[in-house]
Amino acid sequence: MYNFEYKNPVKIIFGKGQIAKLRGELPQNQKILLLYGGGSIFRNGVYDQVKSALEGFPMLEFGGIEANPTYETCMKAVEVVRQEKVGFILAVGGGSVLDAAKFIAAAAMFEGSDPWDILTGKYSQPIAKAIPIGTVLTLPATGSEMNGNSVISRKSTTEKLAFSSPVVMPRFSVLDPECIFSLPDRQVANGVADAFVHVMEQYLTFPVNAPLQDRLAEGILLTLIEEGPKILAFRNDYEAAANFMWSATMALNGLIGQGVPQDWATHGIGHELTAFHGIDHGRTLAIVLPGVMKSMRAQKEAKILQYGERIWGIASGTIPERIDQAIARTVDFFESLGIPTRLPDYEVGSETIDRICQRFEVRKSRLGEHGDIDFRVVRAILEDRL
Amino acid sequence: MYNFEYKNPVKIIFGKGQIAKLRGELPQNQKILLLYGGGSIFRNGVYDQVKSALEGFPMLEFGGIEANPTYETCMKAVEVVRQEKVGFILAVGGGSVLDAAKFIAAAAMFEGSDPWDILTGKYSQPIAKAIPIGTVLTLPATGSEMNGNSVISRKSTTEKLAFSSPVVMPRFSVLDPECIFSLPDRQVANGVADAFVHVMEQYLTFPVNAPLQDRLAEGILLTLIEEGPKILAFRNDYEAAANFMWSATMALNGLIGQGVPQDWATHGIGHELTAFHGIDHGRTLAIVLPGVMKSMRAQKEAKILQYGERIWGIASGTIPERIDQAIARTVDFFESLGIPTRLPDYEVGSETIDRICQRFEVRKSRLGEHGDIDFRVVRAILEDRL
Repeated sequence: MYNFEYKNPVKIIFGKGQIAKLRGELPQNQKILLLYGGGSIFRNGVYDQVKSALEGFPMLEFGGIEANPTYETCMKAVEVVRQEKVGFILAVGGGSVLDAAKFIAAAAMFEGSDPWDILTGKYSQPIAKAIPIGTVLTLPATGSEMNGNSVISRKSTTEKLAFSSPVVMPRFSVLDPECIFSLPDRQVANGVADAFVHVMEQYLTFPVNAPLQDRLAEGILLTLIEEGPKILAFRNDYEAAANFMWSATMALNGLIGQGVPQDWATHGIGHELTAFHGIDHGRTLAIVLPGVMKSMRAQKEAKILQYGERIWGIASGTIPERIDQAIARTVDFFESLGIPTRLPDYEVGSETIDRICQRFEVRKSRLGEHGDIDFRVVRAILEDRL
Repeated sequence: MYNFEYKNPVKIIFGKGQIAKLRGELPQNQKILLLYGGGSIFRNGVYDQVKSALEGFPMLEFGGIEANPTYETCMKAVEVVRQEKVGFILAVGGGSVLDAAKFIAAAAMFEGSDPWDILTGKYSQPIAKAIPIGTVLTLPATGSEMNGNSVISRKSTTEKLAFSSPVVMPRFSVLDPECIFSLPDRQVANGVADAFVHVMEQYLTFPVNAPLQDRLAEGILLTLIEEGPKILAFRNDYEAAANFMWSATMALNGLIGQGVPQDWATHGIGHELTAFHGIDHGRTLAIVLPGVMKSMRAQKEAKILQYGERIWGIASGTIPERIDQAIARTVDFFESLGIPTRLPDYEVGSETIDRICQRFEVRKSRLGEHGDIDFRVVRAILEDRL
């Protein structure tokens, strides 16, 4: 096990009927910005529950945060935050709204000249402060409710970049599994795939003798495999919704990745597919991961075998056969959720692969737990998905 | 899964050589009280590492905290804290020193009349404030490094009582697995048993459809079973020490118990064995747990069967046979660590059982996840251990 430092002070308020507890968590003397997306919170009743909990608090609203939230929209919200002297941001929605809230919170108090530098990393200082944030999560997937991560897209340059800072970790997050009841199949499936790949990226690397971290990761994978299909089959299964929701949070609250190598290549490559073609984030991960497993099968051999055996019960066959089976079962799982896993399913062809590889070549990116995934390997990974 | 609220802001600094990082974690302008126990930190070099990290900080020392820390000793430290206007307590040691630090921190700022009421629960308000605490853990066992729990004994009345409060959670805890290298077998074995039983008390109740919590718990149990014997066989196995240390912390940082029933009967009864006979805490748990499993086998049936199968591979036989086997394997595990599990092994007989049961009768205690363990059941549990 590697040395590590871990601190996660986010307060989780979990369960049905918990949105009413917002009242006790919000600051009394601050103007609150209620941030949300495209309107699903009006249809599922969450908006009404939140408004009722906030009665009497000084508040204004900013709606219209997109899936894959844009820098352009976020900067409009930053204007509002500054002009109205907002003291607290309450993000109500899925990972996109939460990620937007984090960027807005940091950008509003940013001390550099260009807030885009929060994402490019060109600003040399760590982010010093941010407007405090609370969240009401309506879509389990990204783990944003219990971490300091945020991913923002810039329309003008088709870029999708991430930042992470402890100062934008939510003060609290309300997780009511009943929010899942009104989600379309596509969003449930995307959320399951997103959480599943988050775990894989902290698990499927190389062994460093960290058996507890392995088992925590495997526990989340097994639970997602069990519970995901139950929710797709019957949307109002509260127990399955609760187990999925808690699994998605645990998948990316930092805990399972402590003291072990990580490989975020799937996210790195997947972001480009969203940037160029607007493919749902969860789907890009389901497309890319099998390619990463195939191209990096030598480097990841020991962990792919362990994954195959403990998750899918693959205990016999030669090593290459067992690896092939583990990859095939992973693909089958995504497809069983209704997620196509090949680029042509999304009308993406070799031209996009060229453009993505060019970007990685220009950026001199080297992804993976060994830093050995350069633009050539990215090409192999994506061509495998044609 | 039940509704829950969870927040754990303790910063964990984990790994070899990490004690030097203390400098960056301590307040600059506060007088620091270095709190420790009987002197093992002088023999294992931890005292020197801490002193070197603290060079230049205003500091005083208070040593002599006992295993099973006493109210009497703690109140002497409270005097020092008040007189010297201590602003931060750095606890260096095992669970006893950490638990003492929490009580001292709360007692020094207690607003009621008698600090003992922090433990009896007679003070009607929640504990409002405490001197901030940091810890350097030298003995994995209690999980005190990442929770707000504390257990204190009172010599004058042979009582052993617990309290829990978020205000006494450490600001940070340094966990250096190399501290384990100098521990005697007995303390390693006790620590493994303590952590094991912490998990069992949050796991071995009744199913509430919380598969992730179950798997997290099982992951810790399996890791303790694997790693404990390795450390006993070869004390300087850093990897095994690290895995044990992180498992013991994860066993009682609150996470695995969220949203599920809990049963702290083993601790409740075990504390009495320590109060009357001074038996090591970890050993009392290894004595009592098999009795709890036997007496509560009907109520715990589903989870005992799951535990037997997933932890010990017991997959065949009638239900009573499988339960018997699961209990037998648990006993064998404790005994394999060198921990005797029957009362006569500690020269404890039926007279003590009478005294303990009388206490539970007077207190009208009802332990267990169903609140159905009264003094009569406590008698059955303890008589089983004769």
